[in-house]
Amino acid sequence: AVNGSRLWQSLMDMAQIGATPKGGVCRLALTDLDKQGRDLFVRWCEEAGCTVSVDRMGNIFARRPGRDDSLPPVIMGSHLDSQPTGGKYDGVYGVLAGLEVVRSLNDMNYVTEAPVEVAVWTNEEGSRFAPAMVSSGVFAGVFDLDYGLSRADLDGKTMGEELARIGYAGDREVGGRKVGAYFEAHIEQGPILEIEGKTIGVVTDCQGQRWYEITFTGQEAHAGPTPMVRRKDALLGAARVVDAVNRIGMKYGPLACATVGLMQIHPNSRNVIPGRVFFTVDFRHPDDTILAAMDGELRAEVERIAGEIGLESDFQQIWYYAPIKFDESCVAAVRKGVERTGHSFRDIVSGAGHDACYLSKVAPTGMVFIPCIDGISHNEVEETTPEWSTAGCEVLLHAVLDRADA
Amino acid sequence: AVNGSRLWQSLMDMAQIGATPKGGVCRLALTDLDKQGRDLFVRWCEEAGCTVSVDRMGNIFARRPGRDDSLPPVIMGSHLDSQPTGGKYDGVYGVLAGLEVVRSLNDMNYVTEAPVEVAVWTNEEGSRFAPAMVSSGVFAGVFDLDYGLSRADLDGKTMGEELARIGYAGDREVGGRKVGAYFEAHIEQGPILEIEGKTIGVVTDCQGQRWYEITFTGQEAHAGPTPMVRRKDALLGAARVVDAVNRIGMKYGPLACATVGLMQIHPNSRNVIPGRVFFTVDFRHPDDTILAAMDGELRAEVERIAGEIGLESDFQQIWYYAPIKFDESCVAAVRKGVERTGHSFRDIVSGAGHDACYLSKVAPTGMVFIPCIDGISHNEVEETTPEWSTAGCEVLLHAVLDRADA
Ligand SMILES: NC(=O)NCCC(=O)O
Ligand SMILES: NC(=O)NCCC(=O)O
Repeated sequence: AVNGSRLWQSLMDMAQIGATPKGGVCRLALTDLDKQGRDLFVRWCEEAGCTVSVDRMGNIFARRPGRDDSLPPVIMGSHLDSQPTGGKYDGVYGVLAGLEVVRSLNDMNYVTEAPVEVAVWTNEEGSRFAPAMVSSGVFAGVFDLDYGLSRADLDGKTMGEELARIGYAGDREVGGRKVGAYFEAHIEQGPILEIEGKTIGVVTDCQGQRWYEITFTGQEAHAGPTPMVRRKDALLGAARVVDAVNRIGMKYGPLACATVGLMQIHPNSRNVIPGRVFFTVDFRHPDDTILAAMDGELRAEVERIAGEIGLESDFQQIWYYAPIKFDESCVAAVRKGVERTGHSFRDIVSGAGHDACYLSKVAPTGMVFIPCIDGISHNEVEETTPEWSTAGCEVLLHAVLDRADA
Repeated sequence: AVNGSRLWQSLMDMAQIGATPKGGVCRLALTDLDKQGRDLFVRWCEEAGCTVSVDRMGNIFARRPGRDDSLPPVIMGSHLDSQPTGGKYDGVYGVLAGLEVVRSLNDMNYVTEAPVEVAVWTNEEGSRFAPAMVSSGVFAGVFDLDYGLSRADLDGKTMGEELARIGYAGDREVGGRKVGAYFEAHIEQGPILEIEGKTIGVVTDCQGQRWYEITFTGQEAHAGPTPMVRRKDALLGAARVVDAVNRIGMKYGPLACATVGLMQIHPNSRNVIPGRVFFTVDFRHPDDTILAAMDGELRAEVERIAGEIGLESDFQQIWYYAPIKFDESCVAAVRKGVERTGHSFRDIVSGAGHDACYLSKVAPTGMVFIPCIDGISHNEVEETTPEWSTAGCEVLLHAVLDRADA
């Protein structure tokens, strides 16, 4: 009952904005390209008869009225921003599957009882501005508005400034309204569904996350005449922490994940002993107790390594959320949708964070996963298939109808 | 017999060009600031009655005629470019001590038998463009002109383009002429003279160097849903090499130096497993056999580490020169200069590379070191004293006279 080829075509059209030579997308949050992507989405929504509004965090809501428009809306959504080496589906799929649900309802001249909305959440990736999911977090009251608007990129530009610059600093209040239910469709971004040959993942939980920022300060000195024993090499310290982070991830495996993704070396010159290194750590686990144990080990390792080299260290946990359980009735709605459409499925825990994690704080929430090839995401070669894409959208439609007509 | 306060004032004047808040200098090779430094030097030399010429590598020569101007010149010199976090003396001291020798000869109305020149060598630091000492290398015939002009910075701009842009692509042939002797004064950049309380280092040797560029390629993937055992984390590989480089340096200590100074992480996003890392290695030792042993260990470690993580590796040695012995008669001229001026001294091996290393291939060469505070260089806090600066210049004057009047 959805038009899978229209959905696929929209995915391909959106993927041209910020397209990279390797077939991926680079559309960082609140850049000119992000604005282009938003503008295209807004145009499509208006063509589909929706009313579009933007809140002060730049979150976009496209509303299709219900029979009883005073009922709280059922919202579908995800994000349009990408990683620097992002794919065509991460986030975009959830947004455009939502739009396809609206277009399909239009095709059927079907009016839901409650209104239906498609949402685009600002800066979900957490790549240009940390942390991730910041604007759905403000919507859910997890962060306050000032915190959200003051998030800065590595050049010091804030989200507030950049929203204004691209014309998406809306005037609508962020959150503070009742949401009937929230459903997010997304590629799995991991290998499980594909390995097990399942088309749909019924997401029951999300693992918890802790993000850190660490700065080691030593002393810049000449790589030639400075004896090894007199050095305070900040990069040597950071390198040892990278290895320790990996050890911690392996130790609490197979479910733990531990990553250093970003590092900046100062002054970054071949014949200068690095005097300062800034780097980040990303820890994840579905069990909050284990996530806390990983945190403890990291703190001990950073202190030990800084001590052995003679570095000053600045250690900040900049983000934390505990593992999340989705609403049972929304999970059931997704499962019912799978049964009605007849796709193969399994229950699954999300390895990535999603706007749904924060929405679950203020609304009954569920998620639909579809497989991606080789489990690869945050990579330009990220790929899924039109069949999986259509299947996920069908399940989304059924889950939404289950709640919007309840 | 030299004017130490004039020399110090010139050092302070030059240090204003590219001055940093922490008291250092950032005047990278062939930038607009480098042009400003060169222009100031040229003006000072013309005011001192010298004739200035520039060769195709942008090397500048300021000539003071001798009584027999057909004799090969005695050249003093060093460089005006700096590290990103450079000091006020590294290079500049050797150039301006040379200028002060010329000014002192003018004050005394003294005409040397052979002509005397002050040289500024282009891109000695090897920071913006690798390797170091590239233009004195072309002068000495170690590199050919095309190699020199085609060295590119990390943005792909070449030395040839940048020389033309700042107006220092001269028309003089590079090298190919007889040099009577070459003397370079420099801060030690290490701790030995200061620790032993000596004012002058008579440089007898320079340690050899090997520079490498390594690229590890793994696979970008999502930091959340990608199990530890499926990862090909290029930064984990680079981190293990940083630790191995340090181990190799310690193992062949106390004279070995081993440094990773530069690293670029791709895509450098907090929640993306790094797919590609480019980094450099700088190895030094005064004994060529040990330098070769360090090279062998590095190659083995890089191969082992790439293998254990499943990374592709590209490994290039981009620079090598064997340890250098300076000319005995020039070393003796420096030593005689120390005796005449009565300063305390010791023989010393240079830990850094200098343009003198390449000049020694085509001319009898010697070097004069003065101490720097705490042995710190390639750092904005780099410092020496007016007394040491004057002493080094006195010794330089005597060494030059010893050869120019021989
Ligand atoms: N889905 C997704 O890629 N989210 C980014 C935030 C995270 O790293 O979990
Ligand atoms: N003197 C000096 O700092 N030279 C730079 C080249 C090197 O690293 O040895």
